[in-house]
Amino acid sequence: MYRSHTNGELRLENVNQEVTLSGWVQKVRDKGFMIWIDLRDRYGITQLIFDEERSSKELMEQAKTLGREFVIQIKGNIIERASKNPNIPTGNIEILVSTLTILNIAKLPPFTIEDETDGGDELRMKYRYLDIRRKPVRDNLIFRSKVTMEVRNYLSKEGFIDVETPYLIKSTPEGARDFVVPSRMNEGQFYALPQSPQTFKQLLMVGGMDKYFQIVKCFRDEDLRADRQPEFTQIDCEMAFVEQEDILNTFEGLTKHLLKEIKDVEVGVFPRMTYDYAIKTYGNDKPDIRFDMKFGELNDLAQNKGFGVFDSQELVVGIAVPGCANYSRKQTDKLIDFVKRPQVGANGLIWAKYNEDGTFKSSVDKFFSQEDLATWAERLNANKGDLMLILAGNAEKTRTQLSVLRMEMAETLGLRKPNEFAPLWVVDFPLLEWDEETKRYHAMHHPFTSPKPEDMNMLESDPGKVRANAYDMVLNGNEIGGGSIRIFDKETQSRMFDLLGFTKEEAENQFGFLMNAFEYGAPPHGGIAFGLDRLVAILGGQETIRDFIAFPKNNSGRDVMIDAPSNIDDKQLKELNLKLDL
Amino acid sequence: MYRSHTNGELRLENVNQEVTLSGWVQKVRDKGFMIWIDLRDRYGITQLIFDEERSSKELMEQAKTLGREFVIQIKGNIIERASKNPNIPTGNIEILVSTLTILNIAKLPPFTIEDETDGGDELRMKYRYLDIRRKPVRDNLIFRSKVTMEVRNYLSKEGFIDVETPYLIKSTPEGARDFVVPSRMNEGQFYALPQSPQTFKQLLMVGGMDKYFQIVKCFRDEDLRADRQPEFTQIDCEMAFVEQEDILNTFEGLTKHLLKEIKDVEVGVFPRMTYDYAIKTYGNDKPDIRFDMKFGELNDLAQNKGFGVFDSQELVVGIAVPGCANYSRKQTDKLIDFVKRPQVGANGLIWAKYNEDGTFKSSVDKFFSQEDLATWAERLNANKGDLMLILAGNAEKTRTQLSVLRMEMAETLGLRKPNEFAPLWVVDFPLLEWDEETKRYHAMHHPFTSPKPEDMNMLESDPGKVRANAYDMVLNGNEIGGGSIRIFDKETQSRMFDLLGFTKEEAENQFGFLMNAFEYGAPPHGGIAFGLDRLVAILGGQETIRDFIAFPKNNSGRDVMIDAPSNIDDKQLKELNLKLDL
Repeated sequence: MYRSHTNGELRLENVNQEVTLSGWVQKVRDKGFMIWIDLRDRYGITQLIFDEERSSKELMEQAKTLGREFVIQIKGNIIERASKNPNIPTGNIEILVSTLTILNIAKLPPFTIEDETDGGDELRMKYRYLDIRRKPVRDNLIFRSKVTMEVRNYLSKEGFIDVETPYLIKSTPEGARDFVVPSRMNEGQFYALPQSPQTFKQLLMVGGMDKYFQIVKCFRDEDLRADRQPEFTQIDCEMAFVEQEDILNTFEGLTKHLLKEIKDVEVGVFPRMTYDYAIKTYGNDKPDIRFDMKFGELNDLAQNKGFGVFDSQELVVGIAVPGCANYSRKQTDKLIDFVKRPQVGANGLIWAKYNEDGTFKSSVDKFFSQEDLATWAERLNANKGDLMLILAGNAEKTRTQLSVLRMEMAETLGLRKPNEFAPLWVVDFPLLEWDEETKRYHAMHHPFTSPKPEDMNMLESDPGKVRANAYDMVLNGNEIGGGSIRIFDKETQSRMFDLLGFTKEEAENQFGFLMNAFEYGAPPHGGIAFGLDRLVAILGGQETIRDFIAFPKNNSGRDVMIDAPSNIDDKQLKELNLKLDL
Repeated sequence: MYRSHTNGELRLENVNQEVTLSGWVQKVRDKGFMIWIDLRDRYGITQLIFDEERSSKELMEQAKTLGREFVIQIKGNIIERASKNPNIPTGNIEILVSTLTILNIAKLPPFTIEDETDGGDELRMKYRYLDIRRKPVRDNLIFRSKVTMEVRNYLSKEGFIDVETPYLIKSTPEGARDFVVPSRMNEGQFYALPQSPQTFKQLLMVGGMDKYFQIVKCFRDEDLRADRQPEFTQIDCEMAFVEQEDILNTFEGLTKHLLKEIKDVEVGVFPRMTYDYAIKTYGNDKPDIRFDMKFGELNDLAQNKGFGVFDSQELVVGIAVPGCANYSRKQTDKLIDFVKRPQVGANGLIWAKYNEDGTFKSSVDKFFSQEDLATWAERLNANKGDLMLILAGNAEKTRTQLSVLRMEMAETLGLRKPNEFAPLWVVDFPLLEWDEETKRYHAMHHPFTSPKPEDMNMLESDPGKVRANAYDMVLNGNEIGGGSIRIFDKETQSRMFDLLGFTKEEAENQFGFLMNAFEYGAPPHGGIAFGLDRLVAILGGQETIRDFIAFPKNNSGRDVMIDAPSNIDDKQLKELNLKLDL
């Protein structure tokens, strides 16, 4: 037996007990006549003490040989500490060691195993097994485990069945790029790794499983943007005999449960907002509503007043930034520089201060009177002391630009509080979006999403106008989940594939099994999928997902710790009937 | 809202309520003036009634159009049944339908959706979504979900952290064949899908995670034997600062918990048996101990008595089959045929009946006296009325043959009772096994298994004798879990790779990251993995795993429902820098 207790559990009431502990040497303080060691494991830190008076000479010598991250086992007696440490739960006691066994030695780690480490990202990833010893990373992984248990318990209690769907499935060129897996037994053929279990969960509904969930790995071979992983985890759910309302209620329930159990935060009924409203009011479909700064459109107030920059534009739109009327010229110039950065792409920025004394001061005073600016303030819900920021241009681009500026201002003002949670639903997404490059419509959600029945008549005549029974859950400016009511009859599904430019043969070849299934009594159904990595990161109050993943890959899709991907044997290639073509 | 209740919940006390139900038409009984319909969903069956007196003519007409597996929604009033059906929980009531809506029509299913179906295996797999509607398959999937929830809850309560390990890892030629995944972003390189998360869970222990578990898909590109799947699921676990005893106790606890919660079966302390004892006593390392028939070795009793067939052989070994002394010549001849089948491979079989009157009758009466046969009976623990069956030959082969015969006899006698559970531990496995083909040692478990410290001195001098700290959990003649205490220092791990014929470069190239990790303070650790598919099947009292998997593959590794694997685009191949080489 390596230990009688962990390093996190001993307290004053245990004094005088004999214990056996094991763990890592976190720190050695050697005063010559006295040595203290912080012994660490997952559960905490316990202080060990050796001293000239009470420890044997051999033991003192042995203790002096210990280095950082050595793995040791000790036996000893619990004593009350002379100088207590109120910062750790075991801070009232220490162990007077009687026997010390070195279980394993350790080379000096390449970075410090402390909350704040001196290791850079590359080094931390290469030695991820050491990085995980650091409390912040370890706590994130434990937090993730706790979130998934809560998800499972909640959904199980709600009658959802955890069903595993296959990983070796069929490649479909639609959507993102698949990772493929050559089959040795079926020459020249390939499996694909799932981008999501979408078709399988729909087949489970056809199969009468009624309520399905799975926490499941999904795969996308995309050029990686920052904070994207080629493999990621979804909470994948589907329900039969439901309307959109049923799904929203069920998963609003799940999210409330998580916020309560995990963060002890109570939230009320989630606001619901149409896609159109979100775009017009926040410039994007995943608004952060922890703070206000809603968009106000100023075309009727600001155009045709002699300011040419506004007059020719499709949209003039602004926000009121609270309490920033006292910005200096330097500060407003910085904002102008910000929106002109290529990543944002605006041509310029107009500002107008609503001073505390009720007067206005703007960068366009030549063109607009105090009365004009007062109408802007009213439209933007500006209060005295606020700074109005206005952009003009093509509607879609300008909204996106103002959305970026809004987030930037919120960040600057500290309004994106990690421990405040503002969930909402965005609903009534368009069914399709036009792709300029391929000159055809793409499914905004995926080809299985049901059009709204009342918009079905426009499916061929005005497809861009058709709204879908699709919804996203948004939390703190991130889409954490999305789903839809599905098509469940062959005819509509077939029309949908037509619209998306599939030939009959392509549709049949790729999704024939699903359309066939719809002919044997498919129930109405719908579902949702949450991005677990992101959800956990946001609940954990952090922006990046990487430290909530035990062994993440870098931006080239490499695991730098195990050095994968790597070359394989010619023999292996031959067995797969493949040749490299570099 | 598609339904106010499910089809499994209405009872007598609900009579007179107005309800809305949805589901599939299981059965229509049309008596002309009266129509009964069994409406089915996951939760049960509820009877609907339409009759001339109480239903409108239109409704009657509409009901007559319904076919099997149509999806319908009805509104109606709950009434007490005239003739009750005690076989189903809703058998006391029926619904007098007032409105009927057809949600979806259905083609006639290619097989009957009944407990006993007329569909063959291929057909059932092609239309798996219909097969899943059948109660036995549906119940198996729900059962599996329940088992995994119990596993997760138990291990979480025991302090295990659920950590997801990566699916896109590194190919290693050791062990079974990997499925590989070409990387587009890293030209000419490949990921591999994990055969198990072995090295990652060990790294989690090095990382101080202390107790890890994961229910995880694993992949092996092997020629498929019956009832093997290219993708399968493991309950994968690892613990730090443990000895073998700690692991056995923890997972004996888990298994007892499952038996109690899932099957309401209480089992005592699991017997433990060494590998050597299991081989000698049952002829294999996964003995079914629901019944006895232990092997008895007869060399000293049966050799050198003039029966040449025995004299020249390495081993003479037998079992006593209870109550079969009355077997006819035809029956014993059938057993002789059985052992001579190429799949068993024995040259012949000797039988000896221990008659009820205390006399013996054998196929070798010419060579052995009554007294001789009495000594056999004593050695084999035969009682009056038992049939002794004896094989002779090469020790290893003969034990395997007798083991097959023992299982056959148990099957014949109905001793393999699906609802009896006899778990045990098999321990002290050999570290290595000699492979005649490659003329070298292979790791019996895997290369990370720790030799027993007391056998370490034989590692180079007599490697075949070295025992491992490895253990299997066996249930009803199946290995359901296996694990080991791991090597946790670089030097031993390196010796191990030497022994297994790795060059230094190969070892470094494939497992350098693990050996490096061992240099930074690796704790003693060990673990176990359970085959979930098999475990669930056995707990469910069944022998085959396929109906506990929602979408299994056939023996060629194909999913016949979605028709995968399949060809992929040339464009896709080009992006991966690959060419087919058929």
